[in-house]
Amino acid sequence: MAEPSYEQIQYDVVDPIATITLDRPEFLNAWTDRMGAEVKHALARAEDDPDVVVIVITGAGRGFCAGADLKALQQISDGQRSGGAADELAADPGDPSMGESFRGTYTYLTSIRKPILAAINGPCAGMAVPISLFCDMRFASDRAVFTTAFSRRGLIAEWAISWILPRLVGPAHAMDLLLSARKIDAHEAERIGLVNRTLPHDELLPTVQAYARDLAENCSPASMSIMKRQVYQHLTASLGEAHGDAVRLMFESFDRPDFKEGVQSFLERRPPRFPRV
Amino acid sequence: MAEPSYEQIQYDVVDPIATITLDRPEFLNAWTDRMGAEVKHALARAEDDPDVVVIVITGAGRGFCAGADLKALQQISDGQRSGGAADELAADPGDPSMGESFRGTYTYLTSIRKPILAAINGPCAGMAVPISLFCDMRFASDRAVFTTAFSRRGLIAEWAISWILPRLVGPAHAMDLLLSARKIDAHEAERIGLVNRTLPHDELLPTVQAYARDLAENCSPASMSIMKRQVYQHLTASLGEAHGDAVRLMFESFDRPDFKEGVQSFLERRPPRFPRV
Amino acid sequence: MAEPSYEQIQYDVVDPIATITLDRPEFLNAWTDRMGAEVKHALARAEDDPDVVVIVITGAGRGFCAGADLKALQQISDGQRSGGAADELAADPGDPSMGESFRGTYTYLTSIRKPILAAINGPCAGMAVPISLFCDMRFASDRAVFTTAFSRRGLIAEWAISWILPRLVGPAHAMDLLLSARKIDAHEAERIGLVNRTLPHDELLPTVQAYARDLAENCSPASMSIMKRQVYQHLTASLGEAHGDAVRLMFESFDRPDFKEGVQSFLERRPPRFPRV
Repeated sequence: MAEPSYEQIQYDVVDPIATITLDRPEFLNAWTDRMGAEVKHALARAEDDPDVVVIVITGAGRGFCAGADLKALQQISDGQRSGGAADELAADPGDPSMGESFRGTYTYLTSIRKPILAAINGPCAGMAVPISLFCDMRFASDRAVFTTAFSRRGLIAEWAISWILPRLVGPAHAMDLLLSARKIDAHEAERIGLVNRTLPHDELLPTVQAYARDLAENCSPASMSIMKRQVYQHLTASLGEAHGDAVRLMFESFDRPDFKEGVQSFLERRPPRFPRV
Repeated sequence: MAEPSYEQIQYDVVDPIATITLDRPEFLNAWTDRMGAEVKHALARAEDDPDVVVIVITGAGRGFCAGADLKALQQISDGQRSGGAADELAADPGDPSMGESFRGTYTYLTSIRKPILAAINGPCAGMAVPISLFCDMRFASDRAVFTTAFSRRGLIAEWAISWILPRLVGPAHAMDLLLSARKIDAHEAERIGLVNRTLPHDELLPTVQAYARDLAENCSPASMSIMKRQVYQHLTASLGEAHGDAVRLMFESFDRPDFKEGVQSFLERRPPRFPRV
Repeated sequence: MAEPSYEQIQYDVVDPIATITLDRPEFLNAWTDRMGAEVKHALARAEDDPDVVVIVITGAGRGFCAGADLKALQQISDGQRSGGAADELAADPGDPSMGESFRGTYTYLTSIRKPILAAINGPCAGMAVPISLFCDMRFASDRAVFTTAFSRRGLIAEWAISWILPRLVGPAHAMDLLLSARKIDAHEAERIGLVNRTLPHDELLPTVQAYARDLAENCSPASMSIMKRQVYQHLTASLGEAHGDAVRLMFESFDRPDFKEGVQSFLERRPPRFPRV
């Protein structure tokens, strides 16, 4: 895969973690079409790179992401639509076998074959909320604040947030966050289930990195990839479908080297050496 | 719309809030067919009235609602079925385009085009629980207690509570509340997600009114109406369907005056003036 | 129903509670095919026995269940598959009218016509986690710890855990527990909704027994059976289907003696005497 220079993100791989940093700190990392294309391209690289087991998305400076770039919003409200992103960034990451439901503009994050952790280091607003919700887990700094913003701009529940948010926090908290677009702090976010865990600001990145290293050192990358797919697909499956899938995938897992190594390393009380994918 | 005199509710509009008060305090506001018809009629009025942005449902006196009127229950258990409600109260509120799923006896609350807040001022029992759960949000007094009651009367999970309750609190807490019908207090209700927020009794109505005014002053009524529909419809949609809907609704929102005003007021750091609906 | 001697469980009925105790304490009650067949057989007996209103599953000794027996796992990883369980234990409990979705290897617990409470007295690992999650409620000792284990053995999300876990704790906590397989204690389990309630170790069984007795003394067995079915079936139903079911079941309940007794005992302020089923 070509390695273009990114303008609006940083991309760093320190084995086993790829870190994607939204990098327009002077605009609180406001999202642009270009940024979206760069993130997608970087996710494709991370997915293809055997040195990467876990992907972290965070923001540069004091915020995570302010949502859609205001200038772009203004142009749209003046009747202009923005053009496509730069062609050199063409990328199509994720597992197409999961089907169209997992190939949307940002919902494609659910089909990326590696775990994606959002390290939410500060304010997270507007379309940054659905984007962060389609990461597999969210760790928040206690300086983070969240607002969906849409209702205060005359917009609607964008980017399938009305699908994922009620599954994370229930429909009533979802209504509160969407209809009022009020700001909630990171402690309330943790309490209602919007984030997995809220941490003192200075502990955010070290904690996320330690969590990612634990995944890389102790958990089978193949297992994690399959389980991620199971969780998202079974959110709308019948119990019978999920059971049938699980039985089939279990028998497949018995023939994978990961299973032999998982049992062997457990018996020998040593860390496993799972194949990277 | 005709304005009949209500016998079992009060209906007050103080712009921008319509308050429906269940008003049989001598019977802890026990629900009757007549009360159901009056509430439905009042919701139709509120939905049609441009002075109303938010609807609040609460109870008169020391309770919210004791559930089905015991005399009516007794008549049913003696083999009598109650007749229909008064004809002068015919009303058919809600958005029929949402489909039959959202047109049930009390599930129709989900199709009302304006936010409905339950202000649960005291005991809430039996069929009052599903009715309150089909309001969009629930604020509870610390004097509120909840019991589903059905299992202790030989009844079943009525009025689709077995659908909405597990989506709010998960299937295991739902089993606990339905099978045991034990009484839970408002703090436990908040902790498990049955209510959005529990407040000291005297702060309940002021808090709900302030919340409603914030919605009316800062949030687009059109946006709120669309987002309410999205949340309920996408509880049983595929992710792909929800994404497709959201993209279509987003483009439609770009052409609505609310979006121009939302961006403009934000840039001018002034409150928005959104069209009422 | 024949009463074979069980080798790996204890089965005791003290009216109104059947207690199934996983009983290989020297192996932390590690699960075997034999144990699975014995549990299934015991559930069939409990379902058929009118002296049983509530079923409790717990573990002997210091643990609940360590997951799959390691020797069996090793044999599988060496290419051997275990044989079927003893023929004398043939049993087919549960309500077949719920459909195939509720007839899977362990998901059949959802179709058992009586409430099943898991009393998790200590460590609960691997496949014991999905088995406990298909019990209707979970009470945990503060000595309990939970780990899904699968990712650390190169396995996948087994036995439909990827279906039930996100419905209990949301997809983000589910990802955390499945991908990392980290150990969580009973307090975190309660906080995220994995268990209904965590108790001081010595209060676990008395609390579960008191809860079960309350169900037996005050709640209609017929009502509980129907409501259990409603909750599981409506997790994947449309709101319209759930409403239609509830209306039909409500009218049926009006003709059952439980309803008459439920109303009558309430009016007479005495405990109800509901028919056992």
